[in-house]
Amino acid sequence: MHETYMKLALENARTMRGQTDPNPTVGCVLVKEGRVIGIGAHLKAGGPHAEIHALQMAGKEAVGCTAYVTLEPCSHTGKTGPCALALIEAGVKQVVVAMLDPNPLVAGNGIRLLEEAGIHVETGVCEYEARALNDVFIHSILHQKPFVTAKTAITLDGKLATHTGSSQWITSSEARTDVHHLRSEHQAIMVGVGTVVQDNPALTARIPNGRNPLRIIVDSHLRTPLNAQVITDGQAPTWIFTAQATDENKRKALQDLGVEVIKTSGTEQVNLEEMLDSIYQRSITSILLEAGGTLNASFIEAELISKLILYMAPKIIGGRLAPTFLEGEGIGLMNDAIPVEIASVDFVGKDLKITAYPQYSKKPRT
Amino acid sequence: MHETYMKLALENARTMRGQTDPNPTVGCVLVKEGRVIGIGAHLKAGGPHAEIHALQMAGKEAVGCTAYVTLEPCSHTGKTGPCALALIEAGVKQVVVAMLDPNPLVAGNGIRLLEEAGIHVETGVCEYEARALNDVFIHSILHQKPFVTAKTAITLDGKLATHTGSSQWITSSEARTDVHHLRSEHQAIMVGVGTVVQDNPALTARIPNGRNPLRIIVDSHLRTPLNAQVITDGQAPTWIFTAQATDENKRKALQDLGVEVIKTSGTEQVNLEEMLDSIYQRSITSILLEAGGTLNASFIEAELISKLILYMAPKIIGGRLAPTFLEGEGIGLMNDAIPVEIASVDFVGKDLKITAYPQYSKKPRT
Repeated sequence: MHETYMKLALENARTMRGQTDPNPTVGCVLVKEGRVIGIGAHLKAGGPHAEIHALQMAGKEAVGCTAYVTLEPCSHTGKTGPCALALIEAGVKQVVVAMLDPNPLVAGNGIRLLEEAGIHVETGVCEYEARALNDVFIHSILHQKPFVTAKTAITLDGKLATHTGSSQWITSSEARTDVHHLRSEHQAIMVGVGTVVQDNPALTARIPNGRNPLRIIVDSHLRTPLNAQVITDGQAPTWIFTAQATDENKRKALQDLGVEVIKTSGTEQVNLEEMLDSIYQRSITSILLEAGGTLNASFIEAELISKLILYMAPKIIGGRLAPTFLEGEGIGLMNDAIPVEIASVDFVGKDLKITAYPQYSKKPRT
Repeated sequence: MHETYMKLALENARTMRGQTDPNPTVGCVLVKEGRVIGIGAHLKAGGPHAEIHALQMAGKEAVGCTAYVTLEPCSHTGKTGPCALALIEAGVKQVVVAMLDPNPLVAGNGIRLLEEAGIHVETGVCEYEARALNDVFIHSILHQKPFVTAKTAITLDGKLATHTGSSQWITSSEARTDVHHLRSEHQAIMVGVGTVVQDNPALTARIPNGRNPLRIIVDSHLRTPLNAQVITDGQAPTWIFTAQATDENKRKALQDLGVEVIKTSGTEQVNLEEMLDSIYQRSITSILLEAGGTLNASFIEAELISKLILYMAPKIIGGRLAPTFLEGEGIGLMNDAIPVEIASVDFVGKDLKITAYPQYSKKPRT
């Protein structure tokens, strides 16, 4: 039964993805005598936590209930009071927690508070799902870097485009809509300048109530055209990261159009690590990377992609020269391949959607 | 309830894959008053059909029962009597059929016999699964050609090997064992000579009770080494298909070692279509193609691959020059891609196994 209620709490949390930044998404379900008496979710940073919403719904019925929470209740007073205390005061009898707080400095504190008050606490129920749900939050807390999700669309034979460069459209409209949801859930979207020059995309979230992400262009030599959509359409802010050697006039022209141009220390190429640090310092924790095979490969080589989302279309095109989504020089020995953990495989329309996490630290070395 | 019993019949049929050639695999389940009273499967060509085995198990109880059969009962007297008649004589009340006989000349005849005897017949229950199960049989009946299943193992980023050619091992031992089962289920295994020269494989089914398939080498210029395992190990017959211009001495040497060398009309390259016709005339209906990207592409261009089985390993390697499983020149426009129908996606160990059918006739033309 624990799993049933925790899954409902996770489902409530999942729906809030993208609207709680920089906070995690959290869900809570209160159950008493086999009946749900309260449900809650954290809706936005600064607002009440999931437990508080659920306790309000339950009112006095909360005495003696079991609380299911997707993340360890907090023990500190931030913008709101500590949730552990609120659960104690409401008379909750048992608390079931999916995962501990990812911040090692406070992990376990909330549970200790609850246990000291005589409340029975169980942890680790649906932990894997809870960690996947807050992958961005966990990563940014632990590494102080934005979480980069590389999204790509390929044919069943692994191609990003035909040998002539034709790529529209690989996937179905359902998968393309799914990508607009992904954009809406991320704070920023990132592409290489090649994509801007070739496709002139808007990089917006074209779904009802979609939130347009900040647009970031990796453009070592400031090749972004002044009349590109991302420069002129005013749909969302645009940042451009460059290397050292850039045309000052072009930089000024872009800045006059409202674009933020940020130099990194790279002489010929943007220094990716420095770029991500700079983005994190500007309070951006989630980036959707929609790049080609070369930029993707640079990110992978620097171990900067945290998650891969592949949309795989049910079609084949062949072609020795057709590009794949991961190019660069590549790894020499199969034994040195970077392992990935496949988290899910689903159909979106007729396309496969594969979500995977690279496991850099587990890369075997020969 | 129909589906439950039909699935059992299909499961029984599925287990016989590879042991009934050139006949289809068929399963039968007899049910009376909510109790299974007989199960049967066709075990080998020349032996009793599935219905006969099931009726024997049921004995006199068969009167008034419902028969679930994965393929329309036959109406003709071949090596055994017509099953439709046997069902009528046993007093079966109802017959549920997954799919009609794929041979258009006899399709529907068995059902007509049953209905004329007053038996209620329902068709199309689990038809998709039944058709997938007998894909080889259906194809060879309809096209008078062997059914070619292309098997390949790739990384998540679509590579068959690293840019240096390293490919061992891409997949887990579980997936490799699965491949040995595939080999055992096919009458023949086919590779290009490049694979023989580079890997010197045995191409045998190394599982308990595995049946070694016939080995076929596509070798336009007779480059197969005389000391290759497939020539010397005596584990299974080996055929080599060549183009016109071949070294007569080499041909004689291979033939002296027991290898059958078959010329096709191609001047420089083996004529693939002619090769398959020739193989079919020698009573081989199923081929497992374990080729590289170039030979695979030639097969796809000639629309000769009926089924694709991809083992996709949870690892990435990158590499602009790393080969994919479908090379050649490839298709120029994404709109002209060959659609495939994804029939199943499963995990085999940690690897994904994707089974798909190319839909050549539905290839859009611009």
